[in-house]
Amino acid sequence: MRIRFPRLIVPSFLLAAAALVRADDGMWLLNAPPAAQLKERYGFEPTPAWLEHVQRSAVRFNNGGSGSFASADGLIITNHHVGFDAIFKLSTKEHNLLKEGFYAKTRAEERKAVDLELNVLQSIEDVTAKVNASVRPEMSAAEVLAARNAAKAAIEKESFDKTGLRSDVVTLYQGAQYHLYRYKVYTDVRLVFAPEEQAAFFGGDPDNFEYPRYNLDISIFRAYENGAPAKIEHHLKWNPAGTKEGDLVFLAGHPGSTQRLITMAELEYARDVQLPGVLRWMKSREVLLNSYAKRGAENARQVQDEIRGIENSRKVYDGRIGGLLDPQLVAAKQAEEDALRKFAQDKPELGAGDAWDKIADAQHVIAANAARYNYLESYYLNSSLYKIARDLARVAAETQKPNGERLPEYRDSAKNTFELALFSAKPIHPEVEQLKIEHCLTLMAMELGANDPAVKIALGGKSPAVRAAELVNGTKLLDIAARKALYGQSPDALAKSDDAMVQLALALDPAARAVRKTLDAQSEAKQQAHARIAKVRYAKDGDRVSPDATFTLRLSYGAVKGIDAGGAKVAPYTTLGGMFERAADRGNVPPFDLPASWVAAKGKLDASVPFNFISTCYSIGGNSGSPTVNRDGEFIGIIFDGTIETLVWNYAFSDTRARSVSVDVRGIVEAMRKIYGADALVEELLGKK
Amino acid sequence: MRIRFPRLIVPSFLLAAAALVRADDGMWLLNAPPAAQLKERYGFEPTPAWLEHVQRSAVRFNNGGSGSFASADGLIITNHHVGFDAIFKLSTKEHNLLKEGFYAKTRAEERKAVDLELNVLQSIEDVTAKVNASVRPEMSAAEVLAARNAAKAAIEKESFDKTGLRSDVVTLYQGAQYHLYRYKVYTDVRLVFAPEEQAAFFGGDPDNFEYPRYNLDISIFRAYENGAPAKIEHHLKWNPAGTKEGDLVFLAGHPGSTQRLITMAELEYARDVQLPGVLRWMKSREVLLNSYAKRGAENARQVQDEIRGIENSRKVYDGRIGGLLDPQLVAAKQAEEDALRKFAQDKPELGAGDAWDKIADAQHVIAANAARYNYLESYYLNSSLYKIARDLARVAAETQKPNGERLPEYRDSAKNTFELALFSAKPIHPEVEQLKIEHCLTLMAMELGANDPAVKIALGGKSPAVRAAELVNGTKLLDIAARKALYGQSPDALAKSDDAMVQLALALDPAARAVRKTLDAQSEAKQQAHARIAKVRYAKDGDRVSPDATFTLRLSYGAVKGIDAGGAKVAPYTTLGGMFERAADRGNVPPFDLPASWVAAKGKLDASVPFNFISTCYSIGGNSGSPTVNRDGEFIGIIFDGTIETLVWNYAFSDTRARSVSVDVRGIVEAMRKIYGADALVEELLGKK
Repeated sequence: MRIRFPRLIVPSFLLAAAALVRADDGMWLLNAPPAAQLKERYGFEPTPAWLEHVQRSAVRFNNGGSGSFASADGLIITNHHVGFDAIFKLSTKEHNLLKEGFYAKTRAEERKAVDLELNVLQSIEDVTAKVNASVRPEMSAAEVLAARNAAKAAIEKESFDKTGLRSDVVTLYQGAQYHLYRYKVYTDVRLVFAPEEQAAFFGGDPDNFEYPRYNLDISIFRAYENGAPAKIEHHLKWNPAGTKEGDLVFLAGHPGSTQRLITMAELEYARDVQLPGVLRWMKSREVLLNSYAKRGAENARQVQDEIRGIENSRKVYDGRIGGLLDPQLVAAKQAEEDALRKFAQDKPELGAGDAWDKIADAQHVIAANAARYNYLESYYLNSSLYKIARDLARVAAETQKPNGERLPEYRDSAKNTFELALFSAKPIHPEVEQLKIEHCLTLMAMELGANDPAVKIALGGKSPAVRAAELVNGTKLLDIAARKALYGQSPDALAKSDDAMVQLALALDPAARAVRKTLDAQSEAKQQAHARIAKVRYAKDGDRVSPDATFTLRLSYGAVKGIDAGGAKVAPYTTLGGMFERAADRGNVPPFDLPASWVAAKGKLDASVPFNFISTCYSIGGNSGSPTVNRDGEFIGIIFDGTIETLVWNYAFSDTRARSVSVDVRGIVEAMRKIYGADALVEELLGKK
Repeated sequence: MRIRFPRLIVPSFLLAAAALVRADDGMWLLNAPPAAQLKERYGFEPTPAWLEHVQRSAVRFNNGGSGSFASADGLIITNHHVGFDAIFKLSTKEHNLLKEGFYAKTRAEERKAVDLELNVLQSIEDVTAKVNASVRPEMSAAEVLAARNAAKAAIEKESFDKTGLRSDVVTLYQGAQYHLYRYKVYTDVRLVFAPEEQAAFFGGDPDNFEYPRYNLDISIFRAYENGAPAKIEHHLKWNPAGTKEGDLVFLAGHPGSTQRLITMAELEYARDVQLPGVLRWMKSREVLLNSYAKRGAENARQVQDEIRGIENSRKVYDGRIGGLLDPQLVAAKQAEEDALRKFAQDKPELGAGDAWDKIADAQHVIAANAARYNYLESYYLNSSLYKIARDLARVAAETQKPNGERLPEYRDSAKNTFELALFSAKPIHPEVEQLKIEHCLTLMAMELGANDPAVKIALGGKSPAVRAAELVNGTKLLDIAARKALYGQSPDALAKSDDAMVQLALALDPAARAVRKTLDAQSEAKQQAHARIAKVRYAKDGDRVSPDATFTLRLSYGAVKGIDAGGAKVAPYTTLGGMFERAADRGNVPPFDLPASWVAAKGKLDASVPFNFISTCYSIGGNSGSPTVNRDGEFIGIIFDGTIETLVWNYAFSDTRARSVSVDVRGIVEAMRKIYGADALVEELLGKK
């Protein structure tokens, strides 16, 4: 964006906020669609059949993205950057599929992903009453947490046992509602098609979150069941006619998380503690991995997955902190909270009372423990091997407990997902592991203090470099058989293991559990307070507000629309020809260099075919790969990005200049046929075969 | 190094410490050379004439490096990476001298550096008694500071008025001694020769601080006086025969700073506060600048100077924190301090008493104010334009005061240096400035808190992005004439300026001065305590310990020696031919690609000529460009780097595996003749012309 718009006119939030009332706001539950708004603004009424068809066609990539079924024989389209992890794990030093691209001309050539899990939402059930049934007013926050956890575990287990479907209780409106989501799970997923990363991520990190764009950010997989292509009832029909400016479009995908309904105390925590901490962590890792990658091509290949992820996230968090440091955004949030609190004060019968203060109190405890929680509980020394060791140590202890008392990730209902990750054959490079552990131990000592007892355990009386070498050289967990040998052992047996990683995981576990317990109790206290606030909000605004995103299926809507603000005007569509112009303009230097396949096919391509387009649909990380759908429920594109102004969408929506960015179905079809010669696959995608 | 040595054998400090007593330790004052050690270990006795010749041949690059006179007509050799800043500032979008290299075949073609100042040490005088004369026992630390500052300013001014030489009072042994250093200053310095950066920095960031190496890290300048080449009495004779393994060699250069004589309280501050803060600042900037550079070749050119500097420093600080997190190093330092305190306790007549506690107290205050000091006083919003504005605001206020009461950088004796920087024609890119200010404002808000009064002044009620644009668009300081118009104005007149940068500098000045005052008083309190500790140390160890480095001329010594530790064996010399092998081994991919000039000259080169070599000489940042000198005071190489194990040399010396790395005079001569055809210049360097 810096290149296209003079930076002086960076939009202030106030400018954006003016448009708020009319904006195509919301990430809506499929069982509570924004029917009134759609009718009023676009004269469109989604039928139950339309909703069910879209819901069952939508696919969740469990590693953090979205996609959609595209044929009756199980074809699924997602972004290249969502499929990236699977493609990366199928790559070797000799065959880097990210670089070369991939096309299975026959089903026999389709390549099974190493550890990919897909979820397809089958049903939603409101279980709020059931979850809350065991909660008594006299309970402490910790007791409420235990009671609710037990209730959720029971609901999930009962559902799983009855239906065989993955069953997750989802917390909505920060704890005001609990819904049971049942998913059909696919774990035999095979790679069918991927362009070269150069085409998928043309412009690289510099162009990420910018527009205009020219990215064939797609990859195509096929779901299998029992060794054969899955038979799919609901899949989206592709409409190769595409869209035109002004058309109503929908996204059906899995936005990861938003923080729109947080209180000011939570916003201040995000601004003053959380985002600064995440950014420190991320930028330090970006420097580490880039300096490793610069040592040679094979080094670069080993860590490209992680570098891509960090570059992307770093832009996201930089954008968010920029938003939270905008006094106008903060003032708008403050005004919103003031109005809500005033409303609550005037209606004491709603019982919100001191809910905001309770959240502030909990947030202070969370702030004081945040770094400790991250380093002991959630960063896993930034090591795949340590994560495996920790999971082995934890699962041994947790399976001693009744299902309802376990940490959620070790419950019976999560077992399949857990084992898929534990026994994954994904490549692990010891040199990278060692480097990352040394780095994480150093950061841990810097953030928690070298004299912290847990840091001393982690370092074991050695320097980070020496300790990292000792841990990596002292573990056998690189070998899947070694993991299997330790899995299912009793805690006592595990304690006798001479595996250095396992021993460290066991030694750090008490401190890690302690800080998690502290934070879980505070989160629960916040949920209880949020549930009270939600009642106030509902009394004041009705169902005008959708719940914050939770990496569950949501529907958002908007129009195909260019950007016209501050003097700069950007058309909604780019063309295939535009990519060649942009490459020439940037001197064909990476990341603006064209793949050889594109250069070779230039003469055959219709340069005027639409390639990428923007819309006002509300999206956020996790939405990547969501189908862009028209009124008829047809696939007309696939979202892959948002402009830089979308980064504050985590806290507040505006569509003055912020836009979601999709690949156009017309560009996909033209490129697959003319550049990649994937006509047979295109025939299947267009339902002609 | 990660590539050559298995990481498991990362040396622990204890291993290193065993060699400590025999090591070629110390960075010695030219007026207090390690005569006894040299005689005992190497049978060498430096004469006064030898010392004077080396001293007067050594050149300080005032922007942070070293060099040496190499001809009677003012030729000076330094590293390419020391000359980098000057070469960078002479480069344009059309002619990037860093990329192309440079050779002035005639004196008329020599290019005058934009703002380079060189200093040559003429004399050293012990002024400890004079500096302390005005100090009275009943004074507070702040009063002592003021008294000492006034005394130093008077000494410097008197010396400058009398001799016309730059006169600096240097603080040695943390405040136990004060010496007056008088320098001849050269500001007309012209670029004569520089190879392509590819040759100077072959291997780039990955190979930095590693060995074996293949770098022609040199650049050659010429000092001018009154428009003609300066006539130089003392310059080092080049000896093209070079050295052999085991030879005694010296470095005469300007090590920037070391922290070997600090107390444990200061070490803990470095580990827990200072280094973590610096690393956060540095890594975040590295990410920022790299993402800007990736947008295109011209972007990369604009910031390559800064990226190079950050990459280098980041490795340094990573190495240091790694050292301070080594429990064995910490234990060794603790044992040293315990022994010293025991000695002090047994000899109360030395008066050290509570000196260590006083330092700890001061260090706590410094720790609490460190981030504030950095963001308000020393980072200048990471902006050249803001630095200019701050200097204009400060100099206006300071020149109202008597010379002795001013901040040191605005004293009369510093005026020439100050004006050289203020009116420098170095290129400033508004887009880069805006980006860096946005970034620094964001970090400042994260580190000091968004509600800090100074942060609120800095942001001016706007988001970092909007504020940065406003500041850059609202200043005229890009124009040197605008700086000159504001320079020398009264504070009242300046206050009426409508320049946005100047206004912000004025608005932030009270807060910046306040935190500086706090820290200066604590530093003074520490100096007083250190002076007491120094007496104890002298009573215990005599003059066996050299003072910490202070970016003043020092002599260190050692032997040309390979590395033989932990099973890996590294020869002391590399050859020109080795560079071609290394490039081939790395696939000729940047930063391991050979310059076209080298490829073309391969057939002519003698591949067996020594290129780089290592020695046990003690060096640190600032030493870059120091001549490596033999017993006869001849130039036989130029230091440009240290191995990764040298990074803890800041805190403790060991030569088990740590080595300084030099370019060999033989490699320089061969490359300059055969690759660059610079025979005429070589003749002058060899004194044959």
